[in-house]
Amino acid sequence: MSRIGFIGLGAMGGAMAGNLLDAGFELHVWNRTSAKVDELAARGATRAPDPATAVEPGGIVITMLADDRALEEVTLGERGFLERLGPGGAHVSMSTISPHLARRLARRHAERGSRYVGAPVFGRPEMAAARKLWIAVAGESAAKERVRPILNVLGQGVYDFGEDPSAAHVVKLGGNFLIAAAIESLGESAALLRKSGVDPAAFMRMLTETLFACPLYQSYGRLIVEERYAPAGFRLALGLKDAELVLQAASASAAPMPFGDAIRRRFLTAVARGRGDLDWAAIALGASEDAGLVTRAVSGATPPREE
Amino acid sequence: MSRIGFIGLGAMGGAMAGNLLDAGFELHVWNRTSAKVDELAARGATRAPDPATAVEPGGIVITMLADDRALEEVTLGERGFLERLGPGGAHVSMSTISPHLARRLARRHAERGSRYVGAPVFGRPEMAAARKLWIAVAGESAAKERVRPILNVLGQGVYDFGEDPSAAHVVKLGGNFLIAAAIESLGESAALLRKSGVDPAAFMRMLTETLFACPLYQSYGRLIVEERYAPAGFRLALGLKDAELVLQAASASAAPMPFGDAIRRRFLTAVARGRGDLDWAAIALGASEDAGLVTRAVSGATPPREE
Amino acid sequence: MSRIGFIGLGAMGGAMAGNLLDAGFELHVWNRTSAKVDELAARGATRAPDPATAVEPGGIVITMLADDRALEEVTLGERGFLERLGPGGAHVSMSTISPHLARRLARRHAERGSRYVGAPVFGRPEMAAARKLWIAVAGESAAKERVRPILNVLGQGVYDFGEDPSAAHVVKLGGNFLIAAAIESLGESAALLRKSGVDPAAFMRMLTETLFACPLYQSYGRLIVEERYAPAGFRLALGLKDAELVLQAASASAAPMPFGDAIRRRFLTAVARGRGDLDWAAIALGASEDAGLVTRAVSGATPPREE
Amino acid sequence: MSRIGFIGLGAMGGAMAGNLLDAGFELHVWNRTSAKVDELAARGATRAPDPATAVEPGGIVITMLADDRALEEVTLGERGFLERLGPGGAHVSMSTISPHLARRLARRHAERGSRYVGAPVFGRPEMAAARKLWIAVAGESAAKERVRPILNVLGQGVYDFGEDPSAAHVVKLGGNFLIAAAIESLGESAALLRKSGVDPAAFMRMLTETLFACPLYQSYGRLIVEERYAPAGFRLALGLKDAELVLQAASASAAPMPFGDAIRRRFLTAVARGRGDLDWAAIALGASEDAGLVTRAVSGATPPREE
Repeated sequence: MSRIGFIGLGAMGGAMAGNLLDAGFELHVWNRTSAKVDELAARGATRAPDPATAVEPGGIVITMLADDRALEEVTLGERGFLERLGPGGAHVSMSTISPHLARRLARRHAERGSRYVGAPVFGRPEMAAARKLWIAVAGESAAKERVRPILNVLGQGVYDFGEDPSAAHVVKLGGNFLIAAAIESLGESAALLRKSGVDPAAFMRMLTETLFACPLYQSYGRLIVEERYAPAGFRLALGLKDAELVLQAASASAAPMPFGDAIRRRFLTAVARGRGDLDWAAIALGASEDAGLVTRAVSGATPPREE
Repeated sequence: MSRIGFIGLGAMGGAMAGNLLDAGFELHVWNRTSAKVDELAARGATRAPDPATAVEPGGIVITMLADDRALEEVTLGERGFLERLGPGGAHVSMSTISPHLARRLARRHAERGSRYVGAPVFGRPEMAAARKLWIAVAGESAAKERVRPILNVLGQGVYDFGEDPSAAHVVKLGGNFLIAAAIESLGESAALLRKSGVDPAAFMRMLTETLFACPLYQSYGRLIVEERYAPAGFRLALGLKDAELVLQAASASAAPMPFGDAIRRRFLTAVARGRGDLDWAAIALGASEDAGLVTRAVSGATPPREE
Repeated sequence: MSRIGFIGLGAMGGAMAGNLLDAGFELHVWNRTSAKVDELAARGATRAPDPATAVEPGGIVITMLADDRALEEVTLGERGFLERLGPGGAHVSMSTISPHLARRLARRHAERGSRYVGAPVFGRPEMAAARKLWIAVAGESAAKERVRPILNVLGQGVYDFGEDPSAAHVVKLGGNFLIAAAIESLGESAALLRKSGVDPAAFMRMLTETLFACPLYQSYGRLIVEERYAPAGFRLALGLKDAELVLQAASASAAPMPFGDAIRRRFLTAVARGRGDLDWAAIALGASEDAGLVTRAVSGATPPREE
Repeated sequence: MSRIGFIGLGAMGGAMAGNLLDAGFELHVWNRTSAKVDELAARGATRAPDPATAVEPGGIVITMLADDRALEEVTLGERGFLERLGPGGAHVSMSTISPHLARRLARRHAERGSRYVGAPVFGRPEMAAARKLWIAVAGESAAKERVRPILNVLGQGVYDFGEDPSAAHVVKLGGNFLIAAAIESLGESAALLRKSGVDPAAFMRMLTETLFACPLYQSYGRLIVEERYAPAGFRLALGLKDAELVLQAASASAAPMPFGDAIRRRFLTAVARGRGDLDWAAIALGASEDAGLVTRAVSGATPPREE
């Protein structure tokens, strides 16, 4: 099996890298902090002192990072891998980032003779661990072909969105928007039910056994009815980052999104109230509080700042 | 089998009444217009000259009407059935109406010794015809028990929301809100994708095969990508009525709903642009037009009025 | 001076009736509660036992009531004045009501040979007392001519909106919408400033001495910066009623209003949080709380209900 | 009189520089394009070949540019003036920019021993020409003192917001938000009136002679009633830039702004429909079109793109 660079070992990246090791890939790994590196090194991965040395010229490197800034740093920064990757190299970019940055990196790679493949994923850490991710991929055909075996190890399904790498990142943002919109919808309906004296649990059960019988509505419906927002499957503060990326993309393409705006406001309020570390489903508390409902003490929330 | 009054023979009510005839119930039917009455009479139903004579004292009457006003008229109006139904009677109210009217009618029935059972349904006419409706029921236990065999003929599943009849109508409104919110979400994401140069059909395929793998997202996703809004499965003008009912209930219980407001605005714009006879999924044209996309000529739409 | 019926003696109506007495008009007054009636009787007004006897056939009657329901009751109710007013009579309707009710009452008056003149006012109770109201008037020309001397006593300016009486009520709703929008704007900007570490008082001073140098921005800007919402100049619960009327009119004419929706949500939240008795400027607390700012204890607010 | 560097000679900057020349200041000017430079050179200004040479060490430089990027370029770019300005220098930054950039530039200046003074202005080009601008100023006291005579030449009033330079820019964004909110309010009320059959011109006249008797409402009220959006006093595309800056600042400080979001959507739709070169009051067409009103052909608008 060939050698791969893997950069970014958070909850998602760590699980994905572990699966690649299990599948027999040789990994050179780098992470901003070292804890997760130790764990993977114990399982056979090689530590790289910086992003650049994690890659080999003409090789494949995977990135799974928190945001645009982190990806830009490991790629173009002082110790970034762009130069070293060079002609024939392939960068499989799996983070949730802006289509704008994807386009910029794709150009920089093209100038160096390497390829940028956009390959963001849908799924929480436990799905990453179970190789159950859904992957949207876009980029030059030969590069996609080359990295396909890697994607097949990481996910249960890969969808191809053509030659423009930014397309995969737009799809990821569109998908996250749909999820957040479902959460907000469930939150508003739950608040309406409660204020009308109807049990929201019974409502959720009916709707998610019938018209909305898909795991996404079922799991978020349950979290919202039970107001169980800790521990976080996906941190609310990261959800805000994604909501901002959606609206930046919407602004850049002049596509107004009233639901997108309402969602962002919910995230801002939740963060302003000290809920950044809760699960992002906790934006549903917004509808509840706007309706004057007193929420239970929420574990994981820090008190709002005093003025 | 016992005799039942059936009032309201539109696309939904007509199909439901037909199923009851097939199941061996004796029906006395009334409708504002006579076309559908003729058809059911040919299949064995008895024509009633007015709502009152459709019911027998102490019997069961089903209503399936367009709005609050129509239901109020057949129940409390000059030729309404309330008086005649009398002690021991049961009114199975299956229309999408305001919880407020449900509470009022429940009180009026109680004064007369009859019972109001709220039993609104989820499903389009073809689902009604196929006995595939989902029914939310609420009301006094004995009355619910008595009408249960009827509901079992009409739907594939019945969910019980307790003794307060208005609860079932709140559930119906909450459910319709969730559907409209899904439509608007799909419309906004499709517009974002198009303006970003990404094929919305491929996006919809991925999302509705994975996270949103439920028939509702699949069918509306397809309608929106293809901008196929005629013929209407559910008329947009009726969707506006439902959106108004949701917000009235939200106001009455002081539960603000930002998504609810955004949805209502889409309906108003669609109606203002002459699209009341299209399928309600056509509210998705709003996101598209706000993004400056030129929509295809939409069959079924009448031109906007000149000022 | 001629005799006038005056119905509705709240903070506004009481002050207006007092001015008419001072100006030499003979008043027959009626109010749902008697306290204010006593005060005006002491100043020379005649008590009427019910709305009907407050008017004389062919005379003039002024109404200044809380809402549509109250106006409907005194006009069309069991002891309402419509019948007695009769041919040649004029009804000067000065409350903030729905254009829909105005049209209905205008028709009923026309059937009886009397006239409905829409004449809603802008101004708080202290402006009413000082004869500083602004009045929008609409209705049949001769009727408007006849009641003009009365309007001149009550206000400092009268604006004519033509023959259709409902037009004056639409103008009133449009105006109240503009005021509420100014309040919300000030609230959002104050929250932005505070969270950015900038003194909102200095900001308000600059803007209301320059671009927004009109009393409305000056007075509300001050209330919002000082979070001084009690005692109420105009009760928040009444503001909600007006916000609902605006959106009903907007729905009826298919004119979507995103600001209108946002305003209504603020009112609903404020009421849900027990602030119905504060001044309606207290909707500005919404922007503040959404930003995570801890508001000072607000006198006049009752605690939110426990669930 | 002392020598001043002046960078940025658009409609605003050109008028302001002209006033400084008239007041006897010696100006060294630079602009990205040369037309306006020629005109000022003919009136006695000295041309600088690049931003750096426009300033003298320890001197004063004024910037009046289109956006963050332009300001960053002339200050920190390859030929930027930061290095040359050096110890004792003062940078009077009068553009509408992000508080974030202001903070960054203030730090960079402090490192070099120079001072950044935030001094954005309210007023259109004709007000700039007439020395009628309103100026918000913030920065170190001595630096503000030093540049005060310049500000007094340019404006009719200067408001001080303390030592943190970014405060002045927050005030500018808050003020522009208030103006845009007033425009949208007027647009929504005009659409409501029109759809209700009431003359919006008469409505505007009443409201802007009474409660909203300030020039801002009067002038925008007139533009909106007459749908007169060309030529632009302030280009809509620039208004979008400001709306984005407001929401960025709101996000950065976690202060959700529902009106701010609604305004941004209007700008996006207007730009998507080819109206970027109209006056920013043309966002009012949004409410009109959402209500199904057919707008007159608008001069200056380019047709929406075909998909």
